[in-house]
Amino acid sequence: MVDVSAKPETHRTARAQAFVRIRPSVLKKLAENPKGNPLEIARIAAITAAKRTASLIPLCHPLPLTHADADVTVEKNGVRIITSASTTAPTGVEMEAMTAAAVAALTVYDMVKALDKSIEIESVYLLEKTGGKSGDYRRQGGSRGAGW
Amino acid sequence: MVDVSAKPETHRTARAQAFVRIRPSVLKKLAENPKGNPLEIARIAAITAAKRTASLIPLCHPLPLTHADADVTVEKNGVRIITSASTTAPTGVEMEAMTAAAVAALTVYDMVKALDKSIEIESVYLLEKTGGKSGDYRRQGGSRGAGW
Amino acid sequence: MVDVSAKPETHRTARAQAFVRIRPSVLKKLAENPKGNPLEIARIAAITAAKRTASLIPLCHPLPLTHADADVTVEKNGVRIITSASTTAPTGVEMEAMTAAAVAALTVYDMVKALDKSIEIESVYLLEKTGGKSGDYRRQGGSRGAGW
Amino acid sequence: MVDVSAKPETHRTARAQAFVRIRPSVLKKLAENPKGNPLEIARIAAITAAKRTASLIPLCHPLPLTHADADVTVEKNGVRIITSASTTAPTGVEMEAMTAAAVAALTVYDMVKALDKSIEIESVYLLEKTGGKSGDYRRQGGSRGAGW
Amino acid sequence: MVDVSAKPETHRTARAQAFVRIRPSVLKKLAENPKGNPLEIARIAAITAAKRTASLIPLCHPLPLTHADADVTVEKNGVRIITSASTTAPTGVEMEAMTAAAVAALTVYDMVKALDKSIEIESVYLLEKTGGKSGDYRRQGGSRGAGW
Amino acid sequence: MVDVSAKPETHRTARAQAFVRIRPSVLKKLAENPKGNPLEIARIAAITAAKRTASLIPLCHPLPLTHADADVTVEKNGVRIITSASTTAPTGVEMEAMTAAAVAALTVYDMVKALDKSIEIESVYLLEKTGGKSGDYRRQGGSRGAGW
Repeated sequence: MVDVSAKPETHRTARAQAFVRIRPSVLKKLAENPKGNPLEIARIAAITAAKRTASLIPLCHPLPLTHADADVTVEKNGVRIITSASTTAPTGVEMEAMTAAAVAALTVYDMVKALDKSIEIESVYLLEKTGGKSGDYRRQGGSRGAGW
Repeated sequence: MVDVSAKPETHRTARAQAFVRIRPSVLKKLAENPKGNPLEIARIAAITAAKRTASLIPLCHPLPLTHADADVTVEKNGVRIITSASTTAPTGVEMEAMTAAAVAALTVYDMVKALDKSIEIESVYLLEKTGGKSGDYRRQGGSRGAGW
Repeated sequence: MVDVSAKPETHRTARAQAFVRIRPSVLKKLAENPKGNPLEIARIAAITAAKRTASLIPLCHPLPLTHADADVTVEKNGVRIITSASTTAPTGVEMEAMTAAAVAALTVYDMVKALDKSIEIESVYLLEKTGGKSGDYRRQGGSRGAGW
Repeated sequence: MVDVSAKPETHRTARAQAFVRIRPSVLKKLAENPKGNPLEIARIAAITAAKRTASLIPLCHPLPLTHADADVTVEKNGVRIITSASTTAPTGVEMEAMTAAAVAALTVYDMVKALDKSIEIESVYLLEKTGGKSGDYRRQGGSRGAGW
Repeated sequence: MVDVSAKPETHRTARAQAFVRIRPSVLKKLAENPKGNPLEIARIAAITAAKRTASLIPLCHPLPLTHADADVTVEKNGVRIITSASTTAPTGVEMEAMTAAAVAALTVYDMVKALDKSIEIESVYLLEKTGGKSGDYRRQGGSRGAGW
Repeated sequence: MVDVSAKPETHRTARAQAFVRIRPSVLKKLAENPKGNPLEIARIAAITAAKRTASLIPLCHPLPLTHADADVTVEKNGVRIITSASTTAPTGVEMEAMTAAAVAALTVYDMVKALDKSIEIESVYLLEKTGGKSGDYRRQGGSRGAGW
């Protein structure tokens, strides 16, 4: 774990995305899922996972998250997850946003795998981060994703 | 959580993959990572995550894993992770293999993000599963992945 | 932890309930909760908590849950939670059902406490359990609850 | 999870209570519990649960607790739990105190359920909170509880 | 994680010990600990840790523990912890007994470190194990320990 | 849990050691371990455990670690683990360093126990701590350990 003891606490945010490619015929059945509302379940899984990031990623620092959320939306070819996380800390929240996105995508997969095992989590990447010494970052092309 | 009380315990296995696309110039620096051996760290993260699957994925059943492992290898355009999981249980281990793959990929990202924030986890999918009433499944094209 | 090594594995189920008393004027605002669907969030919290019971209750045995679910419904004077859990194990799932109910109730409280801090979790109790040497149990009066 | 990034860190405290109604004849046997001292076990369960609140309650912020404790006392008609929690953070510790109280009550139930399955957690509520923009709160009637 | 899929489930037990060397003058103050009964707290920590072994030790299999306990006793030169664990599983419970002993010892250290930081956990080792293909094992000299 | 609400946040560090005594003939086989690099696995286990200290040790405060690391080295008669941890908090990180050392030692034991069950964790102790009102502490004799 990199030593961040000497770094000042500053406000930091990050946003990430994941895309789960699902065939339209399977996608239609998502809403009829008897296990509950899959989009809401994936959203909760994302927020909960954000809070567990440091226990999942070996070299990740524990951070006092001041915010974590996820938007989970059905698109033509699958489900897109956009997560956000914030903290005031000596290191960034990129991993929290990334972990939330990946776990939400796994949760979507869990709820549709009985219908089609070949469903793929096509991409998980950082959309942007703010704060910290390395400055702000914004992904070129934004949330274009592999879903287009 | 689907009720699997009436299903018999049978031996089940699953394998999954994830690919983290990394530019060759960044990939070269992976071996010099001062945080330790990134491939071994990602492998341990995968195994540990497999054991936590049910606590991360809301509707996933807890399973007594009899095996979990991961191969993490550097390829020309990135790092490929192949995970495997086994159990003897009334339900399958697909989610354990998938979660292990995704968390290993996140761990790789964590160790190279200082070098290049645009690195992308490109594909997380099931390679195969065996056992259970729905029978065996093998992904067409195997571990072609997005890495080619 | 009581030694259950010599007890046979049998199918076991349990159901529990919790009631969160909320004034009708506050209850109306529950549906407008900007944090998401509170009933669905409480349901997911219940299922997730059922899986963590052994790590929360010091002398509780870890059990391979084959089922866990929760119904969270708005009533005239509050929110009622009915949980169910199943396993095939040498000991019962009462604590899993009880823990799920209590954590769902806490989750409801978390989402309405900004509106009214005096909201009370009024009753958490076992509705029934089946299986095991001590036989079946059914609470007299069923889910009458404190909500009437 | 509500965004508390812009809120200042202030000192905050909360106290909660839970009451487990137990028939006097069962209550007498509590002290003879072969599993250990039930009151001390419930107290430890409360403190441990306070530290896990954010991982149990989906939309709850992780907080650096500076204090958590519980008093677990036998009364005429049951066991009363009074918990307290403190932090210096941008949001309050009500949920930590409430979760600690509920988990201590579940732990008491776990240790007496072999004697009487109809035992009920009769109430879990907030006694008071201090700090934060919304000001102090003190429950009217204090810890009257349902136990009287 | 070694693949134990082909191994039969058999009954297995293990016992381990740890010794925390504490000067008699400090040991006297242990009973006056304002934080609670240190021996009971260490015992609960041991049982709870036994249940978390697989999440702490990377290559350790998750096991459905049927029993876990700890005896924590004050001796002339320190505190001795003897733990026991049982399961019916394809692999043994040595790590559960060892982890319980080590965590109980850490818990004792936590409660006396304010009095004397030089206190040492002197020996953590396996006392015996039964069951499984490799047969029974009993440590020569039993729980002689470093405390004599 | 001791109330540290009134204590100021200051920078704190701690270092601890553990020694696992292993016969030279067994030690030779450590490098051939088919489970992976045992020293790296133990190192990761240490760092991960440091982050979970507050959930393992009942009365330990949760701390935002700014650093955690471990050196795991083979010596003539066993494996020595030296851990370090840092934070900026109202209370110290001794328990994080101690827990990391103990869990790394358990992890080493887990990987060699198939070769020799009598292997012993011979010592776990604090090497030094800095920061806080009680001032700095340095163990006399340093990391002499029981391994000599």
